[in-house]
Amino acid sequence: MSDPILFCFDFTSPYSYIVSEKIDALAAAHGRQVRWRPILLGPVFKALGTVSLVSQPDKADYSVRDFLRSARFHGLPYVQPANFPVPTVAPARAYYWLHGQDCDLARRFAHGVFRACFAEGRDISTAATTLALAAEAGADRAAVEAGMNDAATKERLRAETDAALAAGVFGAPWLVVDGEPFWGADRLPQVERWLQTGGF
Amino acid sequence: MSDPILFCFDFTSPYSYIVSEKIDALAAAHGRQVRWRPILLGPVFKALGTVSLVSQPDKADYSVRDFLRSARFHGLPYVQPANFPVPTVAPARAYYWLHGQDCDLARRFAHGVFRACFAEGRDISTAATTLALAAEAGADRAAVEAGMNDAATKERLRAETDAALAAGVFGAPWLVVDGEPFWGADRLPQVERWLQTGGF
Repeated sequence: MSDPILFCFDFTSPYSYIVSEKIDALAAAHGRQVRWRPILLGPVFKALGTVSLVSQPDKADYSVRDFLRSARFHGLPYVQPANFPVPTVAPARAYYWLHGQDCDLARRFAHGVFRACFAEGRDISTAATTLALAAEAGADRAAVEAGMNDAATKERLRAETDAALAAGVFGAPWLVVDGEPFWGADRLPQVERWLQTGGF
Repeated sequence: MSDPILFCFDFTSPYSYIVSEKIDALAAAHGRQVRWRPILLGPVFKALGTVSLVSQPDKADYSVRDFLRSARFHGLPYVQPANFPVPTVAPARAYYWLHGQDCDLARRFAHGVFRACFAEGRDISTAATTLALAAEAGADRAAVEAGMNDAATKERLRAETDAALAAGVFGAPWLVVDGEPFWGADRLPQVERWLQTGGF
């Protein structure tokens, strides 16, 4: 088994949602695992002095059009969140606490969060929705509520975001295959070629 | 014959170079022509308050890596220009003057400019290289020299850049198929699907 693929994302990222629906099967077809690592793009953009596409008036209309079209292109349902970008600290913290308990549970939860946000139009920013989604994934609601507010959980999310920044991540989704970085859902064909050929 | 595809680009754009090598064949496979329209991204970025990827220190390394890898992915030679972005007012003006004389000649010239820049590592910013490339494409060098400095030619390039801005263009390559805008060489698969299906 070769090294796992790193999948770094923010739950509010539409293109990360697309990758979340594709990357595990793509990796498995080449005998790879995937390490899912949510981060917060807010601190990343702040550190780099950049802003999200939809925060730029001249790019916002095209961007939303492209979110919808890209999801359709990949055969995925898509609803543009009413308030966007969505603050994702709650589900990201819950992810890391769940991940410490059970990797498979954390993965189910992460899929649930993305789909709640982008397929079902639910507001994933709240602790209430986060806890409901954790319960839907099979977790104990009270345990998650305590765990996501634990200092170590908060520190883990900060550390993952800092580590991403230090590694050169400036957007999401960010994939790394054997040290090679790929930014954007539109790089999935290149990721696939890289997995097939070991580099090109 | 359906409406032509609009291909809006700057000669200094690596992803535009990729599209320039692909779009005519893709269009022809679906019974379409392509309208090639060089613009200057400098005034576009200035008007929008944005900057090029390579002007952002935290994104420059990844961007150049992605230029090279994306060209390899598409089977194209690629040399990163020593001075980048390249000022492209000279070849863009020459293009419009040539286009007024002979569309096919202008197309050959445009291919020559892109390949000189990205396959051969030549400095396309100068009038001397522009005139040499025009001559290589089959144009009369003295006529091009006079034509590219004509006030009407200069105004044409300004007008095309202004029209692109007014139409919502904020980067290059920018493709429009039956009113649907696509930004980036990585949207070629979506353009192909659009041409196949008439929208999706």
